[in-house]
Amino acid sequence: MKVEIITIGDEILIGQIVDTNSAWMAQALGDIGIRVHQISSISDQEAHIFKALVEAEGRVEVIIMTGGLGPTKDDITKHSLAKYFGVGMKQDKEALENVTSIFARFNMPLLEVNKNQAMVPENCQVLQNLKGTAPGMWFEERGKIYISLPGVPHEMKGLMESEVIPKLLEKGNLPALVHQTLLTAGIGESFLAQKLEPIEEALPRHIKLAYLPKLGQVRLRLTAFGASKPELEKEVEGFTQKIMEIVSDHLIWKGDGTLSQAILARLESLKKTFATAESCTGGYIAREITSVPGASKSYLGGLVPYSNALKIQLLGVKEETLTKFGAVSEETVREMVKGLLERIGADFGIATSGIAGPDGGTKDKPVGIVWVAWGGKGIIQAKKFQFGKDRLVNIERSATVALTQFLTFLKEVPLE
Amino acid sequence: MKVEIITIGDEILIGQIVDTNSAWMAQALGDIGIRVHQISSISDQEAHIFKALVEAEGRVEVIIMTGGLGPTKDDITKHSLAKYFGVGMKQDKEALENVTSIFARFNMPLLEVNKNQAMVPENCQVLQNLKGTAPGMWFEERGKIYISLPGVPHEMKGLMESEVIPKLLEKGNLPALVHQTLLTAGIGESFLAQKLEPIEEALPRHIKLAYLPKLGQVRLRLTAFGASKPELEKEVEGFTQKIMEIVSDHLIWKGDGTLSQAILARLESLKKTFATAESCTGGYIAREITSVPGASKSYLGGLVPYSNALKIQLLGVKEETLTKFGAVSEETVREMVKGLLERIGADFGIATSGIAGPDGGTKDKPVGIVWVAWGGKGIIQAKKFQFGKDRLVNIERSATVALTQFLTFLKEVPLE
Repeated sequence: MKVEIITIGDEILIGQIVDTNSAWMAQALGDIGIRVHQISSISDQEAHIFKALVEAEGRVEVIIMTGGLGPTKDDITKHSLAKYFGVGMKQDKEALENVTSIFARFNMPLLEVNKNQAMVPENCQVLQNLKGTAPGMWFEERGKIYISLPGVPHEMKGLMESEVIPKLLEKGNLPALVHQTLLTAGIGESFLAQKLEPIEEALPRHIKLAYLPKLGQVRLRLTAFGASKPELEKEVEGFTQKIMEIVSDHLIWKGDGTLSQAILARLESLKKTFATAESCTGGYIAREITSVPGASKSYLGGLVPYSNALKIQLLGVKEETLTKFGAVSEETVREMVKGLLERIGADFGIATSGIAGPDGGTKDKPVGIVWVAWGGKGIIQAKKFQFGKDRLVNIERSATVALTQFLTFLKEVPLE
Repeated sequence: MKVEIITIGDEILIGQIVDTNSAWMAQALGDIGIRVHQISSISDQEAHIFKALVEAEGRVEVIIMTGGLGPTKDDITKHSLAKYFGVGMKQDKEALENVTSIFARFNMPLLEVNKNQAMVPENCQVLQNLKGTAPGMWFEERGKIYISLPGVPHEMKGLMESEVIPKLLEKGNLPALVHQTLLTAGIGESFLAQKLEPIEEALPRHIKLAYLPKLGQVRLRLTAFGASKPELEKEVEGFTQKIMEIVSDHLIWKGDGTLSQAILARLESLKKTFATAESCTGGYIAREITSVPGASKSYLGGLVPYSNALKIQLLGVKEETLTKFGAVSEETVREMVKGLLERIGADFGIATSGIAGPDGGTKDKPVGIVWVAWGGKGIIQAKKFQFGKDRLVNIERSATVALTQFLTFLKEVPLE
């Protein structure tokens, strides 16, 4: 089964937004053994939609469209589809109830344009959108499947997971597919590839190894296709074990997890708490940690002491330290961790201080310099990093190295 | 002049990478009045490249391809193009010198595969790539222009700026293009559309209004095409002013800006400071604020007092308040803001407390309930919101409403 993704809307064509939906959908479809053959981004004009549909029909069996389902005039997807299939519109009762209940929940009056969101082409099956007012739509015509989803990422994802993926699986004839993911950090893609060369050479044709790099992290993904799922699982687990042995120094998590999840899981086993003090990362670490459900079990909280005065007041960093060594220094980040342990009462702590940029660098401390410290009572460790000039990249990289160092440290802390 | 961008390579189709190149190229082309008509992402197979080229020729005058120009076996773009045009390959002297000098600079031996990078189809003009070993290529055939660029972002950007844009400008006859963006918050897309209906009806055919919604925010974008840039600018500014009047209550920013930028700009005008205390948003607000360069001018810092003990210790929230009303209550968020003003010494503060989910709700306080407070000395305001069940969505929505309420409040604070 081959799929074409068609994104509808000028915002992609003028470069106002980066199309992250397609990559997410391609991964989700790949996970169930469905290959994306082409991605086409087109404008929100009826003629263009028609032409793209005709072309896609010549290439694939399933066409997934995103975008153009909002209540405003530039949202023309569903009327274009009705015209394309030569059918009228109908009101969908469930979709109307959904819109009505969403507006009721937010205490807002229901406008006529919103009621119109429950209107869909007569020949479609409605895919109920629990995260928004625009229903998804599923058409089977001319031996092909056409799916229309909203372009808002969390609505699209919700519909893909709750409706599209299960319905495509029902269509059957999909090969068995097994994935395994390993998260590594602190080692580059090409070095990993070098270490894993013998494994790659030993992989049979039906198992693929992919490298998915992100700032400071590389996710390794094994994908296997075949007839028997249990056999594939056994085979993949064998290779996974071999890879884990080879990359053990850099392995963070087996499965689809994050650094934050690994840290929280480890702290739960240790029955210990931790806290964060972030200057240059400005809340990035706190946000990553608290995005994990149940983080409050081990995470007491965080400080973002952006000003020096707050570093002194909240964490007891000595004024002398700041004057003598500066806010971006080993001494300061060590005292920040000390403050987390002594003042906040955490068992462990992480601290960051750096110059994220684009301005604020000096000759001795150029933009991109970052000090990170981490530890617990009696052992505080610190390390300096030098990154580039891009503020957002520096913040993300700093957070990643801080979390990686902290996790590596936690792995050595014995269970009680 | 209309352009189609064709990205060649499986990494986009399997979702391994997000295609950021196309958005960058679309913006760069839009800046000189060239419209991207379609973006197609295809696999690195000769037959697929041929088919995509034939289709694109039916749509546009200029086809820009990226990807498939590396030294490895899966990079087939230039051989496919030679075959497509029915020509042989030639060695380009300048391109060979470029490859040789790059390898010499890094002290690496020049392999045969690298020398092959200087081989190009006979009918192309070479676009010298100063940032990498794969030359760009420019073809004029059958009344169309075909451009092939490497997929590595900084190489593609370098070639676009130094070669492609200047050569396209030479071709002349480009229409002028003008964009204007307005950021609104706290009003849904459909309500905005209702308010702006008279404007939409008054818009001439060459000016388009688009609605780009995100959680809690909607970006409005006017796009105009025409012969004279100054005239278009005047026209667009006229409509922009009318829209700004109509949506003034919800207007955050004129231009491509964020809520955080608007808040920081306002505080800089007021010469005041602020701080944040986030329970349920867990650092999301701090991160948004500190992602803006120069945030430290007005932002003293933030607290993420996840545990009740920290709410008491750091912000002076009364134990009695927490016991009597709970951490998720109007009383608690008000005391959190008070703590920011009195203990942290900020002129203004924002506080959030809620149940982000997916667990932790009760009958009285279901998942998705969020209390937000904001204010300065003498005036603290608070508001309750009820969101859904998705943790990450609740966090983002809570941060957006908190920042929106705070900005609305700040707009009323008089300049000194």
